[in-house]
Amino acid sequence: MAETWIEETLYDNWGQRFRVMTELARVRSPFQDIVVFESESHGRVLLLDGVVQITERDEFVYQEMLTHVPLFSHPDPKKVLIIGAGDGGVLRRVLEHPGVEKAVMVEIDGAVIELSKQFLPAIAGDAWTDPRADVIVGDGIDYVARAADASFDVIIVDSTDPIGVGEVLFTDSFYEHCARVLTARGLIVNQCGVPFMQAEELYETSLRRAKFFAHVSAYVAAVPTYVGGFMTLGIASKGGALAGQDVEVVRKRATAAGIAGRTQYWTPEIHVGAFNLPPYIARHLPTARD
Amino acid sequence: MAETWIEETLYDNWGQRFRVMTELARVRSPFQDIVVFESESHGRVLLLDGVVQITERDEFVYQEMLTHVPLFSHPDPKKVLIIGAGDGGVLRRVLEHPGVEKAVMVEIDGAVIELSKQFLPAIAGDAWTDPRADVIVGDGIDYVARAADASFDVIIVDSTDPIGVGEVLFTDSFYEHCARVLTARGLIVNQCGVPFMQAEELYETSLRRAKFFAHVSAYVAAVPTYVGGFMTLGIASKGGALAGQDVEVVRKRATAAGIAGRTQYWTPEIHVGAFNLPPYIARHLPTARD
Repeated sequence: MAETWIEETLYDNWGQRFRVMTELARVRSPFQDIVVFESESHGRVLLLDGVVQITERDEFVYQEMLTHVPLFSHPDPKKVLIIGAGDGGVLRRVLEHPGVEKAVMVEIDGAVIELSKQFLPAIAGDAWTDPRADVIVGDGIDYVARAADASFDVIIVDSTDPIGVGEVLFTDSFYEHCARVLTARGLIVNQCGVPFMQAEELYETSLRRAKFFAHVSAYVAAVPTYVGGFMTLGIASKGGALAGQDVEVVRKRATAAGIAGRTQYWTPEIHVGAFNLPPYIARHLPTARD
Repeated sequence: MAETWIEETLYDNWGQRFRVMTELARVRSPFQDIVVFESESHGRVLLLDGVVQITERDEFVYQEMLTHVPLFSHPDPKKVLIIGAGDGGVLRRVLEHPGVEKAVMVEIDGAVIELSKQFLPAIAGDAWTDPRADVIVGDGIDYVARAADASFDVIIVDSTDPIGVGEVLFTDSFYEHCARVLTARGLIVNQCGVPFMQAEELYETSLRRAKFFAHVSAYVAAVPTYVGGFMTLGIASKGGALAGQDVEVVRKRATAAGIAGRTQYWTPEIHVGAFNLPPYIARHLPTARD
C-alpha cells in the first residue's frame, strides 16, 4: 500500500506533515473543510481548512495554558464564556475548576462538535453532559453582542487563526462587546498565533484589545503541533495587571482547586514564567513599539 | 518550474518540510551527508543526514540558550570547550563573554566548518579569527580523553542527536572524562532532543551524567525548527545547583558583560524560568523516576 501523508497548508512555504494511518472523516460543513485522521505519531488529528487544530497526543499543552492561566489569573471566576473550541477540550478544563458555576460554550460549527464527540471523545471527556455546561451551536459574535452587561468573569476565545472563519473574532466591535460583557475584574484570552511565523497577528490584535482593556499582555506556550516555536496567547484584563503574579498564590489556588499535580504542562511556575516573553516576541506588543 | 521541497527525515512518520529556492551545496563528507539550501521561509538551512541543524532565521534561539545559560550559571568561566557546533554560532556567542580567555572548538567534520564559512558566514561572524578562539578539526572524544585535568570551566556539547555520528558524545566514558577535565565548579551542557518525540534521550543521558556530576538538571528552549515543542538541554555541574538561580544576579552579570539587551531569546528571566520544566518533561529526569 502506498504511504499516505497529510501536509498542513497553514504556510505556503514551510510546514509539518503527518503519516496517515486511517482517514476517519472528511466533511465540508457550511463553514469549513473538516478532516479527522489517525496519525502514527500523534494519535487522532483534527484539521480545519487544512490547519491542525488539535491532536490527541499534545492537546494538553494548548488546553491547559488557554484555560488554567486565565482562570487562576482572575481572583474568583464563576461564569466563563468559551467561544469556539468545538472539540470540547477547553470546556473540560474549565469545568475542572470547582468554583466555576456556569460555562457557556458557543461554537459556530456544529459539525466540529459532532465529529469531536464521535472521533475524539477523550478530549472533552464527560464535559458535554456536565450540568454546569451550556453548549450552544451559534455565532459567538452575535452571542456576545446580545449578552447582558457584566455577565461573565472570563472569556476564552479558542478560534482558528484570524483568517477565514475566525477573522471576526479579532475586531474592535467584538472586543468592545467583550469588555462590556465582562465583570469589573474580568479578563479575556485568545490565541494569537506563532509569532515567529505570524508576528503581526500579536501586534494588531493587541492594539485592538488595548482600546477596551486597562491591561493588555501576552504569554507563551510551546505546543508541539503548532509548529514554529512558542505560540502566543493574548490576554487582556479590566482589573489588575497580569504579569508578575505571585507563584505561591497561584500554587495555593491550584491546590485548593484540586488541579495541582494533575496537569502535564501547566504548573504555577510555568503560569508565572510564561509572561516573560523572549525579546523577539515582546517587540510585537504595542507597548514595545510606542 | 516544478516546486522543490525538502522534507526532514528525523522521524519516519512526522516532520517538517521546506520549500527550496536554491540548493547551495550537497556534499558527502567522510562523516555524513551535508546539505545547505536557501529556503523561502527560514533563509539558509543546514541539514546533516537529513536533519535540520540550523537555519539563519531561528539560529539565535538555540545558540543563545546553549551558550548564555551555562556561561551565566558558572560563577566565572574563563576557559570554554565546545564540541561540535561546526557552524560557529556557539563559538561566536561564547566569545561575546568578555571574561572568556580561551574558547577551544573541536568539530569532527571539517566540511561542516568550510561549508558554514562559505554559505552561512553571518552565523559565526568574525569568531573564526578571534585570537581567543582555537578551532580544531578533530575528534571531540579523543580531545577530551587527552585533555589535562581541570583545564576547562564549561564544556558545551552541540552534537547531532545521539544516533549516528553524535552517539559517542553520550557515553559514560565521555562524561567521565568531561568531569575530570572540568574545574571544581565546572559544568557541561548538551542538547537532549525534543522530549515530546524523544523522551528516552533525556532520561538515558541524564542517568549517565548523574554518575559523574553532583548536580544534574535540564532546561528548555522553544526552537522553531526543532519541531515538536520544547527541546531540552541537559546540564550537569560539579559545583553548585543549577535550578533556582537569582534573576537579579544573572541580570547584573549580563549587564556587566554587555550582553543584556543584545539577545533575541535569552533574558535573565527566561534563563531562570527555563529550569521550570513542564511535568511531561520533568518526569523523564532520573530523579522523577527514583
